[in-house]
Amino acid sequence: MEITTSEQGRGVGVMALTTRANRMLGIEHPIVQAPMDGIAGGALAAAVTDAGGLGMIGGGYGDPDWLAREFTAAGTTRVGCGFITWSVADRPHLLDQALAHEPAAVMLSFTDPTPLATRVHDAGARLMCQVNTRRQAEQALHAGADIIVAQGTEAGGHGYGPQTTLSLVPEVVDTTTTHAPEAVVLAAGGIADGRGLAAALALGADGVLVGTRFYASTEALSTPPARDRVVAADGADTCRTTIYDTVRTPWPHGHTMNVLRNDFVDRWHGAEDELRATRTEATAEYRQAVTERDYDIANVTAGQAAGLIHEIHPAAHTVHHMVTHAEEILRSRAATVTRNPAIGKNPTE
Amino acid sequence: MEITTSEQGRGVGVMALTTRANRMLGIEHPIVQAPMDGIAGGALAAAVTDAGGLGMIGGGYGDPDWLAREFTAAGTTRVGCGFITWSVADRPHLLDQALAHEPAAVMLSFTDPTPLATRVHDAGARLMCQVNTRRQAEQALHAGADIIVAQGTEAGGHGYGPQTTLSLVPEVVDTTTTHAPEAVVLAAGGIADGRGLAAALALGADGVLVGTRFYASTEALSTPPARDRVVAADGADTCRTTIYDTVRTPWPHGHTMNVLRNDFVDRWHGAEDELRATRTEATAEYRQAVTERDYDIANVTAGQAAGLIHEIHPAAHTVHHMVTHAEEILRSRAATVTRNPAIGKNPTE
Repeated sequence: MEITTSEQGRGVGVMALTTRANRMLGIEHPIVQAPMDGIAGGALAAAVTDAGGLGMIGGGYGDPDWLAREFTAAGTTRVGCGFITWSVADRPHLLDQALAHEPAAVMLSFTDPTPLATRVHDAGARLMCQVNTRRQAEQALHAGADIIVAQGTEAGGHGYGPQTTLSLVPEVVDTTTTHAPEAVVLAAGGIADGRGLAAALALGADGVLVGTRFYASTEALSTPPARDRVVAADGADTCRTTIYDTVRTPWPHGHTMNVLRNDFVDRWHGAEDELRATRTEATAEYRQAVTERDYDIANVTAGQAAGLIHEIHPAAHTVHHMVTHAEEILRSRAATVTRNPAIGKNPTE
Repeated sequence: MEITTSEQGRGVGVMALTTRANRMLGIEHPIVQAPMDGIAGGALAAAVTDAGGLGMIGGGYGDPDWLAREFTAAGTTRVGCGFITWSVADRPHLLDQALAHEPAAVMLSFTDPTPLATRVHDAGARLMCQVNTRRQAEQALHAGADIIVAQGTEAGGHGYGPQTTLSLVPEVVDTTTTHAPEAVVLAAGGIADGRGLAAALALGADGVLVGTRFYASTEALSTPPARDRVVAADGADTCRTTIYDTVRTPWPHGHTMNVLRNDFVDRWHGAEDELRATRTEATAEYRQAVTERDYDIANVTAGQAAGLIHEIHPAAHTVHHMVTHAEEILRSRAATVTRNPAIGKNPTE
């Protein structure tokens, strides 16, 4: 990793952390914005790329009109796009629609990416695969993933299993080093500031993928009252649950969705059988709440990083502050080392 | 933080990372061994202290004979002791028994430490409080805690709530800076090697508390077949559950226990009502399994760091490798910075 003064930087005085992720993705800062379904539109993605990271349009389950609109919103800015693998697998024309925009990368999340991998590579895009376990990382590397996103259970939105970012990232880094050393690892889940970025690099990741911090950005398609709930929340105020999938789209077994706790979660989490029995009414209530922006019932899909978010910011502010703070953390340790004459005595030098 | 060549170091060529935790606890390396109930006896605690960290006897629920034996096993080595707060609160003579050994620190975990805080301080020991949320950290600081152990859900054993180390530590660091800036924060949960230690320092912690890595050490009171299961496990093979508490000692609401998955977990986790209905038989089966060291039924109380543990080591090996690796990670970044002439152009200097 090199730390360099950014010459092409868009922000005055912004430093650059250069890792293998920068080189693979052709970006200035090793920060990728998570393709949050319905939240990460073209404006957010373009803002993150313009700030030196890589923005990603949240293709989600796949909706051709939404995709067309949000790629238009991104304009000529180079962005990526993400999909829910099992959803788009049955409708690969949606992937082709995204690939026609020559995205920098396509991120596939949840279930085996193998059936779609060739299509992504043939279109010249980098294949980015989100994994929640070491075994899933091996599967993704076998499918030819260029970038593994090791996402811990503290992340917002869907995921699989209990593993957290801090323990998952080094496991995935070790597996990647063994099976595909040229592949790049990004850490995801719980990362909202320069401390999280610096910690991810210490764990051996090449960069980070950030969702919740960008959910609470001015360019996101999140609603103002939902963002306000993110600002108000502690990390402990989140809950992984299946209840929203019960009133929306059923998911493959073992997947849960991390959301902020609210009345709906308190009522139904742990009472899933009862919810399924009254699904028709609950679904109607949910849909109305979404329309009315009533987040006592509708979901705020945020992760534990919410506890570190105290203001709404433009995406560029987030990118620049994360990099500057991470760089300060790393440089302050550097300065401490080099000022200490005892270091010269280190017998390993 | 200073990085110095260890002059009083017990290992040849072992470096020292000096943080506020070292100074407060009078130790050489900012590594504290978790007081794992029934696992962390005097031999393990003494081995960790002898290696330059701080070893802690696992007083657990409180058993006077066990405590006496394990303090004897620690000999004259300076160690600490940990208790389950709500269990020892009704029998404070057990705390007094530990305090008579002049422990370096007493760690209180789970529920409000306030009723016992004065007793600890009056005996001249440092008060170390384990917390799982920012709000618990505020409560512990209000009670006069000298050291806050911010423990994420990936840790082995008991805990409260969903929050992970990566998101909890910065929240707790910020709260501590606001409410009691002289207090020290240790990160716990998911940390088994130098990467975890370096990441914890990047997050703003002053050091780490390590359980599972020491569970799999030669000096621990864990059994060899249980240690072998830790070595074989991935981080994803853990489960937070209440089922073992159902067949042992009931816990206050909201607490769960992180264990390795096995047949017993697969059978009963999610079927707690059924387990309670057959508690007498299940308890007998559990007790027999403990006697027979049958870990298809008995618990292996390990955290997600199990996925990073591939061998059984003496405790000193773990301490020295964690410090050396963390120091390498920090120094390699330092070297990259100082080699880069562009740094001098940084307008913030």
